[in-house]
Amino acid sequence: MVMPDAGAPPEPVVRDVPEPGPGQAVVRIRASSLNYHDVVNLAGLIRGPWPRVPLSDGAGEVVAIGEGVRRLAVGDRVTAAFHPTWLQGPPTPAAKRSVLGDTCDGCLQQHLLVDAAALVRTPDHLTDAEAATIPCAGVTAWSAVRIAEPKPGDVVVAQGTGGVSLWALQIAKAHGCVVVLTSSSDDKLEVGRALGADHVVNRSRTPEWHDVVREVSGGKGADLVVDVGGPGSLGRSVLATRMGGTVAIVGGLGGYTTPAEIPVSVAMTQNIRLIGVTVGSVVDHTDLCRAVTAAGIRPHVSHTFGWDDLAAGVALMEAHGHVGKIAIEVP
Amino acid sequence: MVMPDAGAPPEPVVRDVPEPGPGQAVVRIRASSLNYHDVVNLAGLIRGPWPRVPLSDGAGEVVAIGEGVRRLAVGDRVTAAFHPTWLQGPPTPAAKRSVLGDTCDGCLQQHLLVDAAALVRTPDHLTDAEAATIPCAGVTAWSAVRIAEPKPGDVVVAQGTGGVSLWALQIAKAHGCVVVLTSSSDDKLEVGRALGADHVVNRSRTPEWHDVVREVSGGKGADLVVDVGGPGSLGRSVLATRMGGTVAIVGGLGGYTTPAEIPVSVAMTQNIRLIGVTVGSVVDHTDLCRAVTAAGIRPHVSHTFGWDDLAAGVALMEAHGHVGKIAIEVP
Amino acid sequence: MVMPDAGAPPEPVVRDVPEPGPGQAVVRIRASSLNYHDVVNLAGLIRGPWPRVPLSDGAGEVVAIGEGVRRLAVGDRVTAAFHPTWLQGPPTPAAKRSVLGDTCDGCLQQHLLVDAAALVRTPDHLTDAEAATIPCAGVTAWSAVRIAEPKPGDVVVAQGTGGVSLWALQIAKAHGCVVVLTSSSDDKLEVGRALGADHVVNRSRTPEWHDVVREVSGGKGADLVVDVGGPGSLGRSVLATRMGGTVAIVGGLGGYTTPAEIPVSVAMTQNIRLIGVTVGSVVDHTDLCRAVTAAGIRPHVSHTFGWDDLAAGVALMEAHGHVGKIAIEVP
Amino acid sequence: MVMPDAGAPPEPVVRDVPEPGPGQAVVRIRASSLNYHDVVNLAGLIRGPWPRVPLSDGAGEVVAIGEGVRRLAVGDRVTAAFHPTWLQGPPTPAAKRSVLGDTCDGCLQQHLLVDAAALVRTPDHLTDAEAATIPCAGVTAWSAVRIAEPKPGDVVVAQGTGGVSLWALQIAKAHGCVVVLTSSSDDKLEVGRALGADHVVNRSRTPEWHDVVREVSGGKGADLVVDVGGPGSLGRSVLATRMGGTVAIVGGLGGYTTPAEIPVSVAMTQNIRLIGVTVGSVVDHTDLCRAVTAAGIRPHVSHTFGWDDLAAGVALMEAHGHVGKIAIEVP
Repeated sequence: MVMPDAGAPPEPVVRDVPEPGPGQAVVRIRASSLNYHDVVNLAGLIRGPWPRVPLSDGAGEVVAIGEGVRRLAVGDRVTAAFHPTWLQGPPTPAAKRSVLGDTCDGCLQQHLLVDAAALVRTPDHLTDAEAATIPCAGVTAWSAVRIAEPKPGDVVVAQGTGGVSLWALQIAKAHGCVVVLTSSSDDKLEVGRALGADHVVNRSRTPEWHDVVREVSGGKGADLVVDVGGPGSLGRSVLATRMGGTVAIVGGLGGYTTPAEIPVSVAMTQNIRLIGVTVGSVVDHTDLCRAVTAAGIRPHVSHTFGWDDLAAGVALMEAHGHVGKIAIEVP
Repeated sequence: MVMPDAGAPPEPVVRDVPEPGPGQAVVRIRASSLNYHDVVNLAGLIRGPWPRVPLSDGAGEVVAIGEGVRRLAVGDRVTAAFHPTWLQGPPTPAAKRSVLGDTCDGCLQQHLLVDAAALVRTPDHLTDAEAATIPCAGVTAWSAVRIAEPKPGDVVVAQGTGGVSLWALQIAKAHGCVVVLTSSSDDKLEVGRALGADHVVNRSRTPEWHDVVREVSGGKGADLVVDVGGPGSLGRSVLATRMGGTVAIVGGLGGYTTPAEIPVSVAMTQNIRLIGVTVGSVVDHTDLCRAVTAAGIRPHVSHTFGWDDLAAGVALMEAHGHVGKIAIEVP
Repeated sequence: MVMPDAGAPPEPVVRDVPEPGPGQAVVRIRASSLNYHDVVNLAGLIRGPWPRVPLSDGAGEVVAIGEGVRRLAVGDRVTAAFHPTWLQGPPTPAAKRSVLGDTCDGCLQQHLLVDAAALVRTPDHLTDAEAATIPCAGVTAWSAVRIAEPKPGDVVVAQGTGGVSLWALQIAKAHGCVVVLTSSSDDKLEVGRALGADHVVNRSRTPEWHDVVREVSGGKGADLVVDVGGPGSLGRSVLATRMGGTVAIVGGLGGYTTPAEIPVSVAMTQNIRLIGVTVGSVVDHTDLCRAVTAAGIRPHVSHTFGWDDLAAGVALMEAHGHVGKIAIEVP
Repeated sequence: MVMPDAGAPPEPVVRDVPEPGPGQAVVRIRASSLNYHDVVNLAGLIRGPWPRVPLSDGAGEVVAIGEGVRRLAVGDRVTAAFHPTWLQGPPTPAAKRSVLGDTCDGCLQQHLLVDAAALVRTPDHLTDAEAATIPCAGVTAWSAVRIAEPKPGDVVVAQGTGGVSLWALQIAKAHGCVVVLTSSSDDKLEVGRALGADHVVNRSRTPEWHDVVREVSGGKGADLVVDVGGPGSLGRSVLATRMGGTVAIVGGLGGYTTPAEIPVSVAMTQNIRLIGVTVGSVVDHTDLCRAVTAAGIRPHVSHTFGWDDLAAGVALMEAHGHVGKIAIEVP
């Protein structure tokens, strides 16, 4: 993906530690992680006005709670939901209106003031850097896998080795699915195999990767393809899917302004379901954390940067130098 | 749609009246109707080998039943299912393998031999010509509306005034929905309004018809768009749909070999569900007949031809001269 | 139902008109309505502590809005949601924690201070007294019907002529369903027939009412039974339901402390789904109002009392003297 | 459960090996297994007329196929579906009409003539005795777990250590769930623990086992309880379930003629879903086999009897002497 120039990150400023109002909490952030959403946002392409504190993802511990907060206590390790006001249920404009690091201050700060209802306990076995990959990439992958109501033995395709795709791989494995992972890099495919991928396909050498998916699935096609490429891949994802199967539309790495071409006759006669997915609710986030605990999932973080080195992280992401997630430490 | 030249219809032949085997029935066909599927099929574009009896749709009465048939009796008025072996449940290759007038003999004959399980009682208030519009167009529209699990008050868009679209209009009204109908002809829109359309849009004069849909729905967008145009309309159908709403992909009048372009970023951020629909099961067919009876639906048949005048019916359909359905009488 | 003695209603008190905080609104209440929940509550059987303002239902107009409220304006006619904090999605303890007139002040007052997110616009064609029947009885009936995803032609059973049952009847008709209504009173059945009931059964004369349901449904059984009797009716409701059909458990008029007996072998072999239903979310409430507008539903209010005559309304409800709903005027 | 006296098993008879008609296959049966359904059936309590070949479960290999059979070849190892004519979709009277060993000849014979569409390939890693536990107990457990659409981390309760319960335990584990197993025997619980149970409860010592379920689930209650006891357990199963959770009604070991008592107010206010489950379709059976392969499940067979020793197997089952399944060898 050709990313816009994110320019220089905002200058750090010193603020007072906030006081939580009724129903609110203050989280001492210890780690964040980078998403394309953040990079686009840093480039000023989404919503104004700056300055606001960037980065949607955040993990840390509760240091203060406001009146009436009973679900959490000071000292609890938590992550914050991407959409703090989307508590549960299907996506709606009202629920999705608020986004950390976008419509309001995000997590590249030491103290995040947020509704306590938007905080979810961190699985015990995760570091803060690992946990910080949950809110955007993890929950997006969770929603993408869940819309297909997967059964053990279902064939799931994850495209590439970015944060959402490796999360989708691990979540699908936790459901007992058979996972096919595609990438243009053998080295990255090895990482995916170590995380549980049952079949790996180098799409540079095998551009007809959907044929491999058909073969692996006994000729039927995948039950679910988690498509992150959009214009670059959506048509082929349709071809890779079984009759009545699902393509989750979760990204547009091939470009967000170019439309994607889909073969209508195949989509129709094969009864394909293409479903747009964007992150999820606090309940989805909570369900994912419970699954992470039950399955012992550890998300893959290939690189970690200090918060004063954000530009290096952004540059690495733009160069596709990472595998899984890039973490940002908050001192 | 530019249709291939259907050429001369097969010559009539005289056959013995068949004897039903165990579980089978013989139906004395009184009427059929034309679908694009039939036209394409007559042109030899789908599956061979000819000769076989064309036309998927058929209505008439049972004249003989085989051993073990208890659901039906001689004299019952019935229609035959498009896919005689798709009894119920989701679409599968096995269920959809058999198609009347396509993979096996269809309904342009006086006596149809078929599994009794594929026959559904005709609603009492329908003529055979009206009932003959149920198996392909009616059931397709039923499936397209049902995938959205519509509620009274939902906004549903039907595109154009072909058989599936007018059926979708009437079925959506039976669910209590608010229906927006588009067409390039004011005369055809008047037919739609008489059938219950709440809002009509001439898409020649208002090519931005999705703006009308947004206005009608209080800015939200449609709960369901039944898209029949494919390449010619699918992108705009996505724009017309509310967050989390559904686009049923039921046709490709804009061309089956051209891919459709969809705006990925809208499909994703608005969480649109695009779902390919093809006809339905015997249970869907039965459910539709029950709804037709309860709601008193009468499908719109604009023209009727004799079976020796099939070519004229095909020509009319290719010229888009019809509204709703074209019936074929079987003497 | 033998109701506890509700005793004397709380004495009226004079309070200042409240000021809305951020995200809040003040509603000038014009009407409320009575539910068994209110009667039990007035008797002190549910949650303490008193005093609090009773009655969950309320309709009126917005007279003040707080900072950040954009969905509503002063002058809008609205009803308030039974659970003000259950915005959408499935029932959860957190969502259902708050109940007007139960855990917090309700609608037997002139000015209700409430989250603006809990207010829903009143359908234009309803009076405030009619609208006041929506929040508890209407939404409960909506949820009970919706869990069965009804299709036009489905057979739905409503038991008796209380508020929930007549709402269920009208909502099922808006879905195109065939409705069977039971009651022990021919007069009340006539009211139901005027509201659209297709079949009525006097269960005093025909205690085996489930046989009528089977007959009406061609031997299959109902697609949905909305059970309000609990111990007095649940077993028979199971017998009245088709294989794979649904029994909504929405009430326990036969007694809340007596367990209901269900025939396990029938429930199992007929694959019955029994589902407990309690009111619904703000989105459910909004969806109902949209359906009420589209279908032109007017709920049935048999009696109206002044707010200083609350005890008479409670007595009438305990004596089952009403049909549909009892409204309470707020001067 | 007090079982009726099954009496002497039918005398063996010698028959010709059948010839498959169109669409049929002949399976050389190698193993069967015992279910309560078989025991009740042997006692003559279900449907007549005898004599017919008993036992619903059968595993073996295909020895002949009829005209038009393409899905299978001679030599394929297969199991036969409990309901040979229930191919897919929800339960219906038509689909469930046919039952092996009940309405038609079953598997206590060397050569089973059956529709090829009712046969499913045996997972490679299973013996025939293990595979023979799939059709009734395995598919029932699969359906019971699937109705709750389980997520990794969900809490599932399996009651006792009979065939369905241990299958449910293993299937729930394949979905990544946390499983609580109850039994009155510590020895049997140890078997369950070895098969993956996360928590075990001796219900003789802890009759309030639902309290353990609440504790294990952080106070919420189980997402799914697979109830096999009916009158003996259903009320407590409701108490063990979270708000909005599911109780699968799959058995009535506490007696099929005694109604079960359920606490209506809890079922209602906690929005419990009680759903009757009976075996499943050929597609369910196929999906289970795919999951068994993916997860490497081996069902637990505690005892194996020769076919001339059927009475001993029945006696053992009546005495609850088994754990998991009792296999019957067919020589």
